[in-house]
Amino acid sequence: MKFSCDKISLSNAVNKVIKGVTPRTTLPILQGILLKSEDDKIVMYTTDMEIGIQCSVDASIIERGSIVVSSKVFSDLVRKLPDDTVFFESDENNTVNIRCGFSEFSISGNSSEEFPDIPDVIKDVTLTLKEKVLKEMIKMTSFSVAQDMTRPILTGILMEVSKNIINMVALDGYRMAIKKYASEGLLTKNLDDFSVVIPGTTANELLRVMEDSDDDVSISFTGNQILFEFDGTKVISKLLDGNYMNYKAVIPKDFKSVVIVDKDDLIGAIDRASLLASNKSNLIKFTFNERELVISSNSEKGKMSERLNIEIEGNLIEIAFNSRYLLEALRVIDSEKIKMSMINSINPMIITPIENDDYLYMVLPVKLND
Amino acid sequence: MKFSCDKISLSNAVNKVIKGVTPRTTLPILQGILLKSEDDKIVMYTTDMEIGIQCSVDASIIERGSIVVSSKVFSDLVRKLPDDTVFFESDENNTVNIRCGFSEFSISGNSSEEFPDIPDVIKDVTLTLKEKVLKEMIKMTSFSVAQDMTRPILTGILMEVSKNIINMVALDGYRMAIKKYASEGLLTKNLDDFSVVIPGTTANELLRVMEDSDDDVSISFTGNQILFEFDGTKVISKLLDGNYMNYKAVIPKDFKSVVIVDKDDLIGAIDRASLLASNKSNLIKFTFNERELVISSNSEKGKMSERLNIEIEGNLIEIAFNSRYLLEALRVIDSEKIKMSMINSINPMIITPIENDDYLYMVLPVKLND
Repeated sequence: MKFSCDKISLSNAVNKVIKGVTPRTTLPILQGILLKSEDDKIVMYTTDMEIGIQCSVDASIIERGSIVVSSKVFSDLVRKLPDDTVFFESDENNTVNIRCGFSEFSISGNSSEEFPDIPDVIKDVTLTLKEKVLKEMIKMTSFSVAQDMTRPILTGILMEVSKNIINMVALDGYRMAIKKYASEGLLTKNLDDFSVVIPGTTANELLRVMEDSDDDVSISFTGNQILFEFDGTKVISKLLDGNYMNYKAVIPKDFKSVVIVDKDDLIGAIDRASLLASNKSNLIKFTFNERELVISSNSEKGKMSERLNIEIEGNLIEIAFNSRYLLEALRVIDSEKIKMSMINSINPMIITPIENDDYLYMVLPVKLND
Repeated sequence: MKFSCDKISLSNAVNKVIKGVTPRTTLPILQGILLKSEDDKIVMYTTDMEIGIQCSVDASIIERGSIVVSSKVFSDLVRKLPDDTVFFESDENNTVNIRCGFSEFSISGNSSEEFPDIPDVIKDVTLTLKEKVLKEMIKMTSFSVAQDMTRPILTGILMEVSKNIINMVALDGYRMAIKKYASEGLLTKNLDDFSVVIPGTTANELLRVMEDSDDDVSISFTGNQILFEFDGTKVISKLLDGNYMNYKAVIPKDFKSVVIVDKDDLIGAIDRASLLASNKSNLIKFTFNERELVISSNSEKGKMSERLNIEIEGNLIEIAFNSRYLLEALRVIDSEKIKMSMINSINPMIITPIENDDYLYMVLPVKLND
């Protein structure tokens, strides 16, 4: 294979595909990047067999072909090249010669025959979203996916699509995050409602590769795979098998205490309370009176309490939480004030932004011993 | 003890003194920060018994006293307080109460009797330098101090003062860095020439605490201690005992090859060559011809070569180096072009900036096998 291309474009593409390389892979070849000529482009591809990332660069192809190069050596090398045209050439012994400016490198590659094939591109785009919208939906839910494999389906994010509405849902048995997005013409074809479960690892990979851009992301499906295509990059992932929980059934409805509070003040107070909460449980306590929420914590490190002004309707209760579960959600909500809806100290609390109804976070309280 | 002070000033001071806490100390009390009232200030002090950092904050002292608080808990807490007045109070049981805004904390402290005394302040300032000058002198030499303890004196930086000139010197047997600073009235008193050896750890501590500021640093000595005082902060350190090497005697004089090269181009080429140098030796080779320096490397990862335009006078030699030893020095030199002076492939090479004569770096070549 022989081609030349611009260093900056090559470097940007390499930086994206190396995010698909898992350091702890058991198959050494998967530490590599597959380079392959395709029309007037060089396609680069990495995979850990679960997720694949593909990126292409405009290039002058002099001789067609493909090769696998070490992701570590190649990415370091490309990043450090001078900003000039890069000349790339590989021979029948898989020796790779790279020239740029007054530099010349020779590294050994591997035959592309040992590397997994790039999955066939699916041409049927099902769904189109702006990159920044998809990124926000993932960011507002992915932290709630289950970390343990007791119920594998819960390690993913449910994406539920019906005509003009997408819901993304993640839950781990202690909390649940639901992000809604409504827009005309989401589905590019006449399709019935459908839902899929995207692995949490894929969601995190997407967060690392996507930008806060107004560009479109095209989402397609085939069998048990999903393809995200944006900005010259393709992320291909397996979907999780199985039925997701009937999550709507667990959302409580009749609340006995409804509280409105400034979000940043609440984050500050919880953050401070968590300093003196026990490292293991992160337990902090909420005590409500007519005008104030008193947040308190205590452990062997010491104790603290802080008062916050609130508006409250209903019962004055005491309720305790794992501070981490509150902070993770509050930090992704973009609203000056938030509403906390409670029943008692045992049932889940619901947190919603005041300014819109597109987000719902449900969190189980921790039982108080005293 | 009882005082109030501004949160921002307190936070800045705490951030400086916690740099003096060693995580791996064997004396648990040294994980703490000593707080002590002094006139209308609160003095904070941390030490690992080798180096001490002291910082003071303006405060309204209501009740004099002293206490030791956990550096981890106190610094986290102070950083997260709202920007308001902080009220601090400790009682006879060493319980510390901190109030700020609507927050109230109670943590347990320790008696200051268990903490090492703050060393007496030395009033005789011997030397005054601008903060940024001292910082630069340390930055340009400290990377060359010996890392192993075979000759303990070489783990420090020699500071050699004579009337209007200060030399800082560090060497580890493979390379040596000498930074000179000349200015009228450096010595605030009539003193003879003198020299001291500052521990490398103290030098690194100073780099972390000092800023690139035009403020003065006052340097004083007493017995085997040195005190740096700047910007409300005092760093007190032991000096190293023993005689430093006669470093001037090892600097070669009669060179056979003198080369001038662009510094940034050289850094770029060495950086790229080091990618394919062996991880252990970082060996890269310089080959000179009439117009060019060819830098090359090879290892099991591959091989590379790069040509650089140079001006050369004298013999055309081949010489090899540990690339790290070259990069560390070149990256601190502030000069568009540098001069490399060599004798042959066995004797040390000297690197100096073209634009001034206040820096000299000497580095031993690596013997070539071929």
